[in-house]
Amino acid sequence: MTREKSRPPRETGEERLTGEDLLIARIAEKFGHGHPGLIKGIGDDTSVTAQTPGTVLLATTDTLVESTHFTLDTTTPAQLGAKALGVSISDIAAMGGRPTFFLISLVLPKTLDTGFVEELYAGLSATALVFGATMAGGNMSAGKDLTVTVTLLGEAKPEKVVYRSGAEEGQGLYVTGTPGDSALGLRILSETKKGGTGESRLKEFKQAVKRHLTPTPRLEAGTRLAERGIAASMIDVSDGIVLDARRLAKESGVGIDIEISLLPLSPEIKRYMETGGSGKEAGLLMALAGGEDYELLFSADLKDETLIEKISEKLKLGITKIGSVTSKNSGVRVIGADGVEMALERGGYEHF
Amino acid sequence: MTREKSRPPRETGEERLTGEDLLIARIAEKFGHGHPGLIKGIGDDTSVTAQTPGTVLLATTDTLVESTHFTLDTTTPAQLGAKALGVSISDIAAMGGRPTFFLISLVLPKTLDTGFVEELYAGLSATALVFGATMAGGNMSAGKDLTVTVTLLGEAKPEKVVYRSGAEEGQGLYVTGTPGDSALGLRILSETKKGGTGESRLKEFKQAVKRHLTPTPRLEAGTRLAERGIAASMIDVSDGIVLDARRLAKESGVGIDIEISLLPLSPEIKRYMETGGSGKEAGLLMALAGGEDYELLFSADLKDETLIEKISEKLKLGITKIGSVTSKNSGVRVIGADGVEMALERGGYEHF
Repeated sequence: MTREKSRPPRETGEERLTGEDLLIARIAEKFGHGHPGLIKGIGDDTSVTAQTPGTVLLATTDTLVESTHFTLDTTTPAQLGAKALGVSISDIAAMGGRPTFFLISLVLPKTLDTGFVEELYAGLSATALVFGATMAGGNMSAGKDLTVTVTLLGEAKPEKVVYRSGAEEGQGLYVTGTPGDSALGLRILSETKKGGTGESRLKEFKQAVKRHLTPTPRLEAGTRLAERGIAASMIDVSDGIVLDARRLAKESGVGIDIEISLLPLSPEIKRYMETGGSGKEAGLLMALAGGEDYELLFSADLKDETLIEKISEKLKLGITKIGSVTSKNSGVRVIGADGVEMALERGGYEHF
Repeated sequence: MTREKSRPPRETGEERLTGEDLLIARIAEKFGHGHPGLIKGIGDDTSVTAQTPGTVLLATTDTLVESTHFTLDTTTPAQLGAKALGVSISDIAAMGGRPTFFLISLVLPKTLDTGFVEELYAGLSATALVFGATMAGGNMSAGKDLTVTVTLLGEAKPEKVVYRSGAEEGQGLYVTGTPGDSALGLRILSETKKGGTGESRLKEFKQAVKRHLTPTPRLEAGTRLAERGIAASMIDVSDGIVLDARRLAKESGVGIDIEISLLPLSPEIKRYMETGGSGKEAGLLMALAGGEDYELLFSADLKDETLIEKISEKLKLGITKIGSVTSKNSGVRVIGADGVEMALERGGYEHF
């Protein structure tokens, strides 16, 4: 500190705030969307929001860490932003809720510049707009790993919330979309990265790569299945069908049979399985135990089959019965095309 | 995947979940506290909670990153957990709200074991109990830096929320506690670490070190100042009085004068200032621009002085008038004991 006899030029308040303050203010101005419930967003100690009367509050937090969850070799900042929010929207979808506000905490290596941060926010913001979420707060820190933590809030009518615990014996087990694509996309990306197979594979398995880099949360399917009382239990498939089915089974106190012959496989995963060698086994493992599909896995009464088909048609999103809810004693089983149970060597995609 | 003709032993559902699932379940069982609004905590895709009718939702997120915000050389896992939650409680306090639920996202280097994680949660849980917050969700990932992100929710009556924007010319500027202690504690800790001064200094400046490692959020002061309509504007001092006063001034469109002679200095910071050399200047800089005090800085009408004194006595927490709100044109000024303005070389504690 130095003492000055002559008075320095007056500060306007804008000057001499921190770089973090200024960057956050710029981002809030650029990417803040309106939301009727947002009373105060960025620019105070906390956000202040109003909840729709008669709803319960949903909250979920997810972190993407460089090297662990993604690499900047294959992911653009905008894709990273989109995915960081998307995986949380998927969680809200699995409860049958609708997203409202989100807070983001960024840990940034010093090598990344504000341009990177703005691109990341642009991707995040585009996803937020599509799914009706509004940024309410955030902060930034320095660190070695680029780390993006999104906490997403949402709301739902209390009687419409779908838990993991609602599965009952005799129900069907359903999945949206074509699981395994994200794992296939990841494999293609990592093979390409190593220089083993080249650009042509990226084109050949374009959809799978896209599913991996920017998964689409199944929000509309989740809310429709919940609001119409169709889904009895639901979870989003983040760690593979088998592991996530185990979670449903555990919370519901039931068993689950998954039938290989019923698995909906995408054209790309089928093509991968036809490449010979260990392709067939690898493809099946991706569909059963690949991570990060962010599809919805749910149980429903068999009598609701027609309603499910209608939602599937309306949303142009496949929803497929892949098995059934059994008794707790049966456990979680994968049944082969010949009706014989199969055993997985790995139970799924373990982060930890 | 291998196919087995003979059926494997049945899974119970508990078996063959991921290590993360099992650790989170154990933590939820051990450290989950009841809260009347908690409908579903850990164990589903999102938490589900009920909000008190007639309140608005407060939400804040903060991240502590190893090396950037703390070092395990001087911080225990329990202290880290306590601080990670404490800094967010401080934000809720600055709005005049009360904390309700929190979610925690941990990034863990592979070198840390589950014992470390449980200790961290124990510290976090103890703080949560004291301040009435309940864990509602969380996740864990692997990464190079130990990173703790807490998102804390809270609530307040909408008409009682105190914003940064409410300061008006003519009001007094007040601060709780004795700012600068945390910066002093950090200095003592880092000097000790380097082996320069030894253990005796840790004892000599015990309170300052404690304030740095486990700051006490001023929740009770914040809610009383808000609920009684005393604080017109408020912020928690995370980056030093001067920088946080600038934030108040900017959001309120006012100027602020801070008077050096009025600064409440702790016995330890006074002792530090008397050690000679640059101690006096360094001590003043800590009080004005030191980070992480987590005291409350607020403006209030001068007529409320007696009410403020009563809260101060009741809570056994010093609340001191350190300046006044002026016109926007005056900017944020630090006024020396002789009435002459001083200039800081550094405006505060920049994270970024």
